[in-house]
Amino acid sequence: MDYLDLIEQLQVAADTKVVFLVMDGLGGLPLTPDGMTELEQAHTPNLDKLAVRSLCGLSTPVAPGIEPGSGPGHLSLFGYDPLVYEIGRGVLEALGIGFDLQPNDVAARGNFCTLDENGLVVDRRAGRIPTETNQRLVEKLRTIELPGVQTFVETVKEHRFVLVLRGEGLEDGLTETDPLVTGKPQLTVEARRAEAEPTAVLVNRWLAKAHELLAGGRPANGCNLRGLAKDPGLPQMDEICGWRAGAIATYPMYRGVAKLIGMDVLATGDTIEDEVETLKGHWADYDFFFFHVKKTDSYGEDGNFPARVEVIEHVDHLLPDILALEPNVIVITGDHSTPAKLKSHSWHELPVLLWAEDMRPDNVTQFGERPCMLGGLGHIRHVDLLPLAMAYARRLKRYGA
Amino acid sequence: MDYLDLIEQLQVAADTKVVFLVMDGLGGLPLTPDGMTELEQAHTPNLDKLAVRSLCGLSTPVAPGIEPGSGPGHLSLFGYDPLVYEIGRGVLEALGIGFDLQPNDVAARGNFCTLDENGLVVDRRAGRIPTETNQRLVEKLRTIELPGVQTFVETVKEHRFVLVLRGEGLEDGLTETDPLVTGKPQLTVEARRAEAEPTAVLVNRWLAKAHELLAGGRPANGCNLRGLAKDPGLPQMDEICGWRAGAIATYPMYRGVAKLIGMDVLATGDTIEDEVETLKGHWADYDFFFFHVKKTDSYGEDGNFPARVEVIEHVDHLLPDILALEPNVIVITGDHSTPAKLKSHSWHELPVLLWAEDMRPDNVTQFGERPCMLGGLGHIRHVDLLPLAMAYARRLKRYGA
Repeated sequence: MDYLDLIEQLQVAADTKVVFLVMDGLGGLPLTPDGMTELEQAHTPNLDKLAVRSLCGLSTPVAPGIEPGSGPGHLSLFGYDPLVYEIGRGVLEALGIGFDLQPNDVAARGNFCTLDENGLVVDRRAGRIPTETNQRLVEKLRTIELPGVQTFVETVKEHRFVLVLRGEGLEDGLTETDPLVTGKPQLTVEARRAEAEPTAVLVNRWLAKAHELLAGGRPANGCNLRGLAKDPGLPQMDEICGWRAGAIATYPMYRGVAKLIGMDVLATGDTIEDEVETLKGHWADYDFFFFHVKKTDSYGEDGNFPARVEVIEHVDHLLPDILALEPNVIVITGDHSTPAKLKSHSWHELPVLLWAEDMRPDNVTQFGERPCMLGGLGHIRHVDLLPLAMAYARRLKRYGA
Repeated sequence: MDYLDLIEQLQVAADTKVVFLVMDGLGGLPLTPDGMTELEQAHTPNLDKLAVRSLCGLSTPVAPGIEPGSGPGHLSLFGYDPLVYEIGRGVLEALGIGFDLQPNDVAARGNFCTLDENGLVVDRRAGRIPTETNQRLVEKLRTIELPGVQTFVETVKEHRFVLVLRGEGLEDGLTETDPLVTGKPQLTVEARRAEAEPTAVLVNRWLAKAHELLAGGRPANGCNLRGLAKDPGLPQMDEICGWRAGAIATYPMYRGVAKLIGMDVLATGDTIEDEVETLKGHWADYDFFFFHVKKTDSYGEDGNFPARVEVIEHVDHLLPDILALEPNVIVITGDHSTPAKLKSHSWHELPVLLWAEDMRPDNVTQFGERPCMLGGLGHIRHVDLLPLAMAYARRLKRYGA
């Protein structure tokens, strides 16, 4: 159920503070069937001490079996059902490189590709060209001018780039050019809605010029545009929850997602210590803090089990500094699982810990996947964590008489 | 939530095999408050050994408190929310007797009834006439001819029969004739949609002739038609999941439900051993196998607790033969509970076991209702089992970036 409307109706002001400590990709797997997960193996005396006083459980980010990207994983943590509130790939790609997307920009994910002499796509990724080649080609594409519209072209990496169109009257609701299989011609961008027709014309004009500039190159002699989208105009968190929300994250993607829902993105440094300092420095300014730790995920993607254990131990070491600020509610979890064993995001449930006053502590004495299976929160969904945290923070009034 | 659309978007090919071992009516009840259920009492060393390495839990077929029929119980196992994807009673009744329903057939469930001299229904089941009487009356009804349409009339049992109309342009969306209470006249079949008007005329003509033929009989001198429906045209499993699905079941109803969603129904014998042989024989041909065991349910309906225990032990005995095929994912559960104590389907949750690689085994060491209460799958819904199985079979790609 999507109940942001209900939350918005019921929210009341309170002098309470809520922290969501998000260890990206927190959920793990044992390397052998009888082994321990990264979190279980980590020496986490502070998390375990907190678990004793808390409610623990396992949480599903999107739906059972669904492996979420970072966008859906975080939206759900903030109470937005990602199946209801979709963010286009172009927008996510722009956020991922820290592009300062404006509300009416149309962003597309671009892929350099290889076309044969008949214009058929023979390699959808142009052999994953080096990022340096990408940068050189992007310089060329930046010379393309469109009437009445600013264009931005930015390298992501390898064959991937971002195209952003900025100007009056741009609309999304556009089809993609990638035929998705090789041996087929590229598609023309078409408007799915009449209002998007002029934007489709502009994008096709840009594509025609891009292909003139890329012609003759090898292996990248063409490009495709996918996920052409605007900022979806998500409901803003301050209006829904009635609180001032601050985001502390070191990576562009997470800062971008926070910005999309109206959080203030706070300047911080590169380390978790920097992030803790930022939290302390802004403690008086906000009611809700999104505190993001990236490296649990990065080392998961790398398949580096011991490094994940170390990052978790590092967070555990800094936890007392966060608790010393005396938040009224703290939720500790991740956006999705990234088990080192799989070197990838996965669909597995995540351990979650919720501490606040006036709860009924369960019997969990260690913060880990297996102990959380028997936790008092049970099996929960990410979208339910925000309303629960608001309730424990005394920020929701009674529903009905 | 119904997320078959999402599954279809995310499915990818993989060289993996999934088995759903469905013991019909598996969930049971203790005969005395301190007793054991059928599954708990059964000696199941192989199931228990597998449980040690698996995730266990309890699953709700449709919704809490809802006692499902076989149709909804199975649809939900296959990922179709039965509250979204309804199958008409006429279709289910036809499937239940193994009638080879075609996509444009309109099927109705028929009930012989008793009418008084004023045409009011005085017994909606005609005193549950013997099946032999039913067969004699059905012979009469088979003589009815309709213009441009073939009709089939088939005995089910006692007062129940099936009527199927076959021909061009037949439509469903028809009302029923049974007033549902006694002392009222029968209703005329009406079209809920304009396109169904000609079909309503045909059905009413058939009914008029049927009443001429039945007039004067005792106690069955009339009949009612209910649940007039066509094959609902359910989304096909191969398209949703991207796999080849084979069904191994000995009873018509389950073969019929499997056929409705596009599984190949495999020829097999009458015993569970025969079904295992069929599984072995077709192992290379399919990615997903629905393996149905009927007698756990039949003996439940009979109230035969020890016979249910024996069937479960029989399945346990054959389990190693199934595991020897090395499925990548195996799910063991039922479509609903049929406790011998109740002699009926029931609303109780069902024990469920999911084994695959890359899971976090829980602490359950015995496959039974009470041990499963504390299992790592928690309390789950049937419709979530298929997406979970697909995820563990590496057949779902990431959702969102």
